[in-house]
Amino acid sequence: MFCYLLAHTLEPDSLVAAAARLCYSTAAASDLLERESEHLSASLLRKLQRSGHHSPFEHASFTFGVDGLSRVASHQLVRHRLASFSQQSQRYVKMNDPQVVVPPSIHSNPQARALFQRGAEAASALYQELLTLGIPAEDARFILPHGWETRLVFTMNARELHHFFRLRLCRRAQWEIRELARLMLSECRRLAPVTFELAGPSCVGGQCGESPSCEKPYRNMEDVLRKNDE
Amino acid sequence: MFCYLLAHTLEPDSLVAAAARLCYSTAAASDLLERESEHLSASLLRKLQRSGHHSPFEHASFTFGVDGLSRVASHQLVRHRLASFSQQSQRYVKMNDPQVVVPPSIHSNPQARALFQRGAEAASALYQELLTLGIPAEDARFILPHGWETRLVFTMNARELHHFFRLRLCRRAQWEIRELARLMLSECRRLAPVTFELAGPSCVGGQCGESPSCEKPYRNMEDVLRKNDE
Amino acid sequence: MFCYLLAHTLEPDSLVAAAARLCYSTAAASDLLERESEHLSASLLRKLQRSGHHSPFEHASFTFGVDGLSRVASHQLVRHRLASFSQQSQRYVKMNDPQVVVPPSIHSNPQARALFQRGAEAASALYQELLTLGIPAEDARFILPHGWETRLVFTMNARELHHFFRLRLCRRAQWEIRELARLMLSECRRLAPVTFELAGPSCVGGQCGESPSCEKPYRNMEDVLRKNDE
Amino acid sequence: MFCYLLAHTLEPDSLVAAAARLCYSTAAASDLLERESEHLSASLLRKLQRSGHHSPFEHASFTFGVDGLSRVASHQLVRHRLASFSQQSQRYVKMNDPQVVVPPSIHSNPQARALFQRGAEAASALYQELLTLGIPAEDARFILPHGWETRLVFTMNARELHHFFRLRLCRRAQWEIRELARLMLSECRRLAPVTFELAGPSCVGGQCGESPSCEKPYRNMEDVLRKNDE
Repeated sequence: MFCYLLAHTLEPDSLVAAAARLCYSTAAASDLLERESEHLSASLLRKLQRSGHHSPFEHASFTFGVDGLSRVASHQLVRHRLASFSQQSQRYVKMNDPQVVVPPSIHSNPQARALFQRGAEAASALYQELLTLGIPAEDARFILPHGWETRLVFTMNARELHHFFRLRLCRRAQWEIRELARLMLSECRRLAPVTFELAGPSCVGGQCGESPSCEKPYRNMEDVLRKNDE
Repeated sequence: MFCYLLAHTLEPDSLVAAAARLCYSTAAASDLLERESEHLSASLLRKLQRSGHHSPFEHASFTFGVDGLSRVASHQLVRHRLASFSQQSQRYVKMNDPQVVVPPSIHSNPQARALFQRGAEAASALYQELLTLGIPAEDARFILPHGWETRLVFTMNARELHHFFRLRLCRRAQWEIRELARLMLSECRRLAPVTFELAGPSCVGGQCGESPSCEKPYRNMEDVLRKNDE
Repeated sequence: MFCYLLAHTLEPDSLVAAAARLCYSTAAASDLLERESEHLSASLLRKLQRSGHHSPFEHASFTFGVDGLSRVASHQLVRHRLASFSQQSQRYVKMNDPQVVVPPSIHSNPQARALFQRGAEAASALYQELLTLGIPAEDARFILPHGWETRLVFTMNARELHHFFRLRLCRRAQWEIRELARLMLSECRRLAPVTFELAGPSCVGGQCGESPSCEKPYRNMEDVLRKNDE
Repeated sequence: MFCYLLAHTLEPDSLVAAAARLCYSTAAASDLLERESEHLSASLLRKLQRSGHHSPFEHASFTFGVDGLSRVASHQLVRHRLASFSQQSQRYVKMNDPQVVVPPSIHSNPQARALFQRGAEAASALYQELLTLGIPAEDARFILPHGWETRLVFTMNARELHHFFRLRLCRRAQWEIRELARLMLSECRRLAPVTFELAGPSCVGGQCGESPSCEKPYRNMEDVLRKNDE
């Protein structure tokens, strides 16, 4: 999987702080153009997050590109409705080489891996054969495995990203969308450190919201952002 | 595929008309409880649809259950964001017998059908084998074909349904979601004949909005609702 | 203020439970039509609410009519974006007698009340005078007070209603939208007692989410639903 | 009214084109980072707009600040649900000098204007008097006129902006939100000329969608963007 930021709001921390400040002061919107003090912005953003006033975070928007995500994970991803998606079409784009995501549990089991790879290649060969028989690509793909790779461009605002990270970085989330969320959060924290300071699964904030709990709470943000966490 | 209404707003035509009437009159909301004249309601609903004032249609809500939809079609279905979805989980529910949707183009081609069925059975057997090797269901499913069947309960309001029918009953839509849309529209028209009187692809209203056009416009609603239209 | 249910999903508790059950079982969607045991449904709904799995609640939909709400409160109400609104137009409907909501703090202060009523009458008379001078109703209304009454029909699903009740029944919410929320929750609990069993401000569940807190937590649901709680 | 862009997606035309291209090609998302040819982008964007494929436009986001908008217009503005709003609070911010939007129809009628100004000043004085009597600001504002000025920061994506411009630049829209839309479109066209090339009321594209029509179709975009169009 390859994930990166294609576009984003410039200086997201300042924009969110400026919008929040408008609500509670007599300042004109035009004065918001003046640079906020970074120190005051940071303290305001922390206060907003802690008191659950998330709406100003919606003004900051982030667009990601992702390659090599399985259709399993993309089906989960597009369930987030407060987001915008452009996805590679399997109706119009013919698939070539077998491009299948191999789950770690299969990759690390030699017998399972061999079976899986043979199965994926067989499905891919069958897809080509169906095309040869005149079956349209949009129907031939019914034989392609769920793990087949797809590509997307998607946009979420910082409020929805907070929601996404809370759900999808939980250890009980599916491993692949969790990996995607990890890559996304790293990028977001680089660009908007204060906006995403308190992002992540609820356990990082001290309290698990899942039932039953996984009983393996993350200790801190470094723990969340570490690869191969298990 | 098996699709039916699980729940819906009672007397949707009257509710939509009542809400619309509130906007433009001095009538109290409490008077809306009195029964509207059916004749006046119908004429108001037609006027709203023709002049593009769709918001009153949002008050009427419809909940469908569907069995035997492929994951191909469900991935498209859940892209409709102004809707609510509950879908059978492949993470928690283990799959048993091969249950794969066979596209008509494959079904009607004996050679392709034989290949497809053998492929689907092989994938299903492989899924079981992976489970036996200790691979979790949520990872073993990566080998299941895209055509694998799923089940959903979903809710849309009448405005979103109009949008859904316009897009998904177009001959250029994927055949399976088109079939789903056809079953849904039949149900909706039974319950709310006026609300859905002008629903359907844009060609039924006289003008194709797609580019390029399929050049096979539907002649009328009966034409849209007929099975096996090709 | 006069608020009542105009329409709603039939048997909301059963529908929500059925949708939730589909996600985690091999049951066909068609079997969901069979009546759920009420006891099992209730226990499932409680589990969903406690573990934060709110999406099945979206299938149940509720339509309210409200008369005599101020434009102050309606401006807040329409900020809820996961909802549908039809509101009486001040552009097309001419206003007649002065119809202004008097806040309790003004009503209980004789001097303030006298001033307020004189001001409201003067504004209403001025509105009529502007109409006489040929000013269109949509412009004359610029002189009408914020407290002027309006009418709406609006629809929310049970998930959004939970969110609405959490925010708007908090003692720190504006008194008028709090009163509206109280009337709505009474109606909802009558129809869907289990679905709304755990609805309300966060303090009823044991923990205040606001900062700073009002320091007057509700003790229980009866406390929340009592009129004139201060 | 004072309206300006506070933030926006960089190079919106390129981003929208890149997202659209991903859907229909084998290009990796990572290749989208390479600069698109401007000529090809423009022709793709025009094609998307003409064929009604609006979803790629959602990736480009625009944040506006506005001062001096009446509460009449802000009530309409916040009805757009696919948008994010931060609005100056009348609960927490005390109002000072009378700041009321005067509609042109009143401004141009000396008698009406004199009446209106006297009414606005009286309401403002009454508001201050109520504060003096100990009435909280959130209740005293019930006497302030609808035309009272407010401030907002709001964000919309380019797809919603297209929708907004179609509705709100129509001559039948309220004059004040029409003026806001005009200022917004000017800014948008400066930054993303191709994305907004075909924006505007439906008459500019050749066909009125309103019923009844105003019978004064705009001739072209210059006509739409001209101030004081009547």
